Amino acid sequence: MTVVLIAIICGLAAVVYGIVTSRQVLAQPAGNERMVQIAGAIQEGAKAYLGRQYTTIAIVGVVVAILVGLFLGPIEAASFVVGALLSGAAGYIGMNISVRANVRTAEAARLSLQRGLTTAFRAGAVTGMLVAGLALLAIAGLFYILVDTLGASPNGEVVIRSLTSLAFGASLISIFARLGGGIFTKAADVGADLVGKVEAGIPEDDPRNPAVIADNVGDNVGDCAGMAADLFETYVVTVGATMVLIALLVSGSPEQLTALMSLPLIIGGVCILTSIVGTYMVRLGAKQSIMGALYKGFWTTALLSIPALWYVTWRTLEGNMNSPLGGARDATGPELDPATAADALTGGFTGMDLFWCMMVGLGVTALLVWITEYYTGTNYRPVRSIAKASTTGHGTNVIQGLAISLESTALPTLVICAGIIISYQLAGLIGIAFAATAMLALAGMVVALDAYGPVTDNAGGIAEMAGLEDEVRHRTDALDAVGNTTKAVTKGYAIGSAGLAALVLFGAYTTDLDRFAAELGIGPAGVDFELSNPYVVVGLLLGALLPYLFGAMGMTAVGRAAGEVVIDVREQFRSNSGIMEGTSRPNYARTVDLVTKAAIREMIVPSLLPVLAPIAVFFGISLIAGREQGFAALGALLLGVIVSGLFVAISMTSGGGAWDNAKKYIEDGNYGGKGSEAHKAAVTGDTVGDPYKDTAGPAVNPMIKITNIVALLLLAALAAGGSGG
Amino acid sequence: MTVVLIAIICGLAAVVYGIVTSRQVLAQPAGNERMVQIAGAIQEGAKAYLGRQYTTIAIVGVVVAILVGLFLGPIEAASFVVGALLSGAAGYIGMNISVRANVRTAEAARLSLQRGLTTAFRAGAVTGMLVAGLALLAIAGLFYILVDTLGASPNGEVVIRSLTSLAFGASLISIFARLGGGIFTKAADVGADLVGKVEAGIPEDDPRNPAVIADNVGDNVGDCAGMAADLFETYVVTVGATMVLIALLVSGSPEQLTALMSLPLIIGGVCILTSIVGTYMVRLGAKQSIMGALYKGFWTTALLSIPALWYVTWRTLEGNMNSPLGGARDATGPELDPATAADALTGGFTGMDLFWCMMVGLGVTALLVWITEYYTGTNYRPVRSIAKASTTGHGTNVIQGLAISLESTALPTLVICAGIIISYQLAGLIGIAFAATAMLALAGMVVALDAYGPVTDNAGGIAEMAGLEDEVRHRTDALDAVGNTTKAVTKGYAIGSAGLAALVLFGAYTTDLDRFAAELGIGPAGVDFELSNPYVVVGLLLGALLPYLFGAMGMTAVGRAAGEVVIDVREQFRSNSGIMEGTSRPNYARTVDLVTKAAIREMIVPSLLPVLAPIAVFFGISLIAGREQGFAALGALLLGVIVSGLFVAISMTSGGGAWDNAKKYIEDGNYGGKGSEAHKAAVTGDTVGDPYKDTAGPAVNPMIKITNIVALLLLAALAAGGSGG
Repeated sequence: MTVVLIAIICGLAAVVYGIVTSRQVLAQPAGNERMVQIAGAIQEGAKAYLGRQYTTIAIVGVVVAILVGLFLGPIEAASFVVGALLSGAAGYIGMNISVRANVRTAEAARLSLQRGLTTAFRAGAVTGMLVAGLALLAIAGLFYILVDTLGASPNGEVVIRSLTSLAFGASLISIFARLGGGIFTKAADVGADLVGKVEAGIPEDDPRNPAVIADNVGDNVGDCAGMAADLFETYVVTVGATMVLIALLVSGSPEQLTALMSLPLIIGGVCILTSIVGTYMVRLGAKQSIMGALYKGFWTTALLSIPALWYVTWRTLEGNMNSPLGGARDATGPELDPATAADALTGGFTGMDLFWCMMVGLGVTALLVWITEYYTGTNYRPVRSIAKASTTGHGTNVIQGLAISLESTALPTLVICAGIIISYQLAGLIGIAFAATAMLALAGMVVALDAYGPVTDNAGGIAEMAGLEDEVRHRTDALDAVGNTTKAVTKGYAIGSAGLAALVLFGAYTTDLDRFAAELGIGPAGVDFELSNPYVVVGLLLGALLPYLFGAMGMTAVGRAAGEVVIDVREQFRSNSGIMEGTSRPNYARTVDLVTKAAIREMIVPSLLPVLAPIAVFFGISLIAGREQGFAALGALLLGVIVSGLFVAISMTSGGGAWDNAKKYIEDGNYGGKGSEAHKAAVTGDTVGDPYKDTAGPAVNPMIKITNIVALLLLAALAAGGSGG
Repeated sequence: MTVVLIAIICGLAAVVYGIVTSRQVLAQPAGNERMVQIAGAIQEGAKAYLGRQYTTIAIVGVVVAILVGLFLGPIEAASFVVGALLSGAAGYIGMNISVRANVRTAEAARLSLQRGLTTAFRAGAVTGMLVAGLALLAIAGLFYILVDTLGASPNGEVVIRSLTSLAFGASLISIFARLGGGIFTKAADVGADLVGKVEAGIPEDDPRNPAVIADNVGDNVGDCAGMAADLFETYVVTVGATMVLIALLVSGSPEQLTALMSLPLIIGGVCILTSIVGTYMVRLGAKQSIMGALYKGFWTTALLSIPALWYVTWRTLEGNMNSPLGGARDATGPELDPATAADALTGGFTGMDLFWCMMVGLGVTALLVWITEYYTGTNYRPVRSIAKASTTGHGTNVIQGLAISLESTALPTLVICAGIIISYQLAGLIGIAFAATAMLALAGMVVALDAYGPVTDNAGGIAEMAGLEDEVRHRTDALDAVGNTTKAVTKGYAIGSAGLAALVLFGAYTTDLDRFAAELGIGPAGVDFELSNPYVVVGLLLGALLPYLFGAMGMTAVGRAAGEVVIDVREQFRSNSGIMEGTSRPNYARTVDLVTKAAIREMIVPSLLPVLAPIAVFFGISLIAGREQGFAALGALLLGVIVSGLFVAISMTSGGGAWDNAKKYIEDGNYGGKGSEAHKAAVTGDTVGDPYKDTAGPAVNPMIKITNIVALLLLAALAAGGSGG
């Protein structure tokens, strides 16, 4: 268990980094009185929102925890609670830093661009490292306690179910946080734009707009807290599922098994260290390119991870890199169909195979970053084509944006397919799992890039509201423009890794079906997952429907909530004419409160969709065509969600990013610049892209995984009921 | 073969109906000189476009025909040519009537609404009946010649391959016609709107706009010729694939087999008769509801079809409705895995089972019509919610429209899933095939409703350009508004039936793999279509990608071609100032010619995507992982295309229809009416919806099927090569 302990130490290192760095950030000057006042309002709003969101989630969480306890057991229930709490904590702490770093970034930008960049990036890095660190601590800690302290077998039932429950806790938080945060941020943003820019004709971030504070709060609860919960969850799910698959599929002595099961943990651990090194490389070069500075950090981490991963693999496997590690589990294990295990392993793999799978994961990450940058950066064809289409009006802007959003799914799909094929050829399903784990191991760095976004966005808003000098505004604008791309890049990475993670979960589902065949009452013929089985087709169709329905609900929710903002702001303008004259302050808190209530109300039903759909489909089809077909349809549903969700999520996040930057490209003086007709059309495209890229699209990630995890838990519960009854 | 002969007579009846009715339409007065002149320009443009389109397709067609001849044989090549020629003929003749009926409808509307309705609907009915009649004649004639004249066995290889080749011919035409027509119509429409309504501030259909004739030509080449080719293809594919599946899966004497194989033909035949009766029921009631009048025709056909289908089933099966018809094919047939056949048949079925499957098909049709009407009609929540969202601007209009388009996929998916489950429970894969056949049997009536649309659209344009009285314009507007809904309804029906047809084709693919296992070099373990096979996952992902990529290409093509229109029109306005003053006529032909060239150029690459993708995926994966995995990935690709294409197509066609009618709803005087800010936002939504609903969305149907047919032909070619070598 030494390896697990080292992983735990790496996790603690991330937490220490978080504490040290947040002290550095908080030690910086917070600017003049007006700036502190504005930042205070944002902090208050963010705190109020998260408080209410977590209270609501807690109610759902307690109910679910009791259900988990009843159907599975107390250890599983405790694991669920730990997953939920730590996921919430990562988001909460990160956001607390973020809403304090915003004003400090604005103040630092008064001195130099480099200082602004450092402050904003460090704040983002706190969130990033906490996500990776706490996630690793959760899994490694749970594994250590169960196996070393409580003496459970590393591939015993209690370990497998606890890891799944831990992931479920993280997932449940993340779907609510992602969707609630997404609705909040875009309702405030769209509402503020509609009533401010369009109706009243005042610029963005004008302090006269009552929705302006809500808009700034939204950046933090969406991109910081929401993304943190999302990637915490993907991390836990991926590393957890990889360990579970090793436990299920690989044969060997308990020592060998423990070594192999702790490999994903140390992969995560060592990449935390390379990420920490990377954060110190974020420095402006001679060209003063902000994106270049951020990429310096990213590429340092990625490149350092190559030898680091080789080293930890070599050490963990005790130098045994070239002899076969796993074969098909033999008959002494639980009742697993040997053919399945053999299939899934493609007949054994070596340490080198696993190392190459990790390289595949890093390669997929790098390519996804590069592709997203291409589709959302202002230097390339896609964004420029949207900007050009804006010259002929609103309609052509939106048409071109939709075309780009559809097109942007192609290259990522090819990359993901290539990743699946190569890693499967190397080491079967386990290979795919290790590729996904290596991808997620970089989460600390990637989340840092993402969480940088809301800090700079807020900094720009504060600079505007506090009336800072033009030069400062230019600096914060420059920092902010890059934030759009890094946010899009993170989302591409998140959905790509979610896709691979979901495949691993699907593998766990089919393996579980084999394991529990007797308890689940499945006949000797097994479950027919052939594509020619019409219940499989029905499952695929119903699964593919979920992201569409979920996306529709998310988009509608934003529209409804933004409408409420418009009405509230209009009312404030009407009842208090001093607001527009600048003589009296609008009631920011009222708008924040309104958006808070709306977001919480709107997040409930769509969040329950992926939790309830698998259960409904299983019992519905079972009733019509028997249990075997119920399991077949449920399995197909899981794959349908992935297949369709990947496209819905990528098209929405890339398309939205491209629309946003097409607007920025015009604002940089192209096609007539600010105020031109083309700019108006581009603003429309940006508004459309907002709920696409920040609400519906990213919320598809946790949706995909929660559907899969609910299915796994359903199997576990049915198996427990079946063997007990 | 009596039954087949009766089906042929029914097909001839449709052709006779077409001749008689088109004479009736053409015998009507064509209006004053100005009207004749305008209509002449439209006719000329349409003829020029179709001529050039068919020339281009012919070049591709000849190459493919030679390939089919070389790889499969001369009879198959001849079948391919017949399919291609008749598909082209249905579109060509229908469009020729349509471009002559438009001016006659405008003239008839001067007398009364009923007369206008009758003229327009009759013209649509000519296209509808020709589609159903020629399609039925093609399949029934081919079957008759092969089996009766040439003495082939009804389930012999030459019959199966000729039916597939016939379908391929129809498919190849339909993808080009659908996409080329779709690009033409929307490039002209969007281009005309952008430069006319937006830039020059002149109303739609203003004769001063040089693109106005191209716009009217586009309605005919898109909705009339394009839709005709599309449904001709779906008809041939569905009925053909049903016959092929019976040949492959059902055991029995040649007489029993011939009877069962001719059942789909007589289903088509009898529904032609009920459709003809239905066309005479289209009459305005006391409420003067045009939609009501059209529905009278549709519901008459649907209800009459119930007893008619029972009767022909009873007669064809010689009263044998309740004893089992088919069991698993025994070992005397070709080498078919008996387990597959037994699975696919769920252990035999009776005549009553087949009748109930046909009722499922009618039920699915009725529900899809009703759901599409709900999502695109001005009386219901979806359209009204988009109209309401228009009051807060362009952005919220588009957001709500996208939300509705995502949402609109839910109910059709549930209906299709229910249809699959019920018909499979009744009679296995054959049951699904019969449900699809019954759905398609109504094609004559449904295409009539659709082809009515461009006639009324043109009539409105001609009335405007010829300066007819306001009262006439009101009548043509009323006729046209309904056309929006019927067009959307037909598209929902087309994609729903395409989804079922594609499942039947996928069944044929898996059955073929079993039959040809030896020739294809597939080992005794067979092809692993299990969802846990990663090559299946890769195939699903690549298949799901195709509709996205294809949609992106279609949308971009419209944008590019519309941009050329804008430049041309601007140039005409600039070089000839008399145009805007109304003193000199614009050069309509130049714009038509430009759009023609652009549409033909733009249709080639996307059309080849579904032809080449299956071949590339099969050979690519075969190279990496062996032939079995190549076949597995190819099969999964087929299902991936269906699963993702269904959602892409439904969301685009329903969403586009809803946007269009939201604009109409505002123009009816809601939320400020014409000229208000809400109206401007609604025009943007309509522009976005145009390529969605008329280019990219509907072209997904033929794309889905052509992918499947290419896969079937690839198998046949590989098997022929394998057994020959």
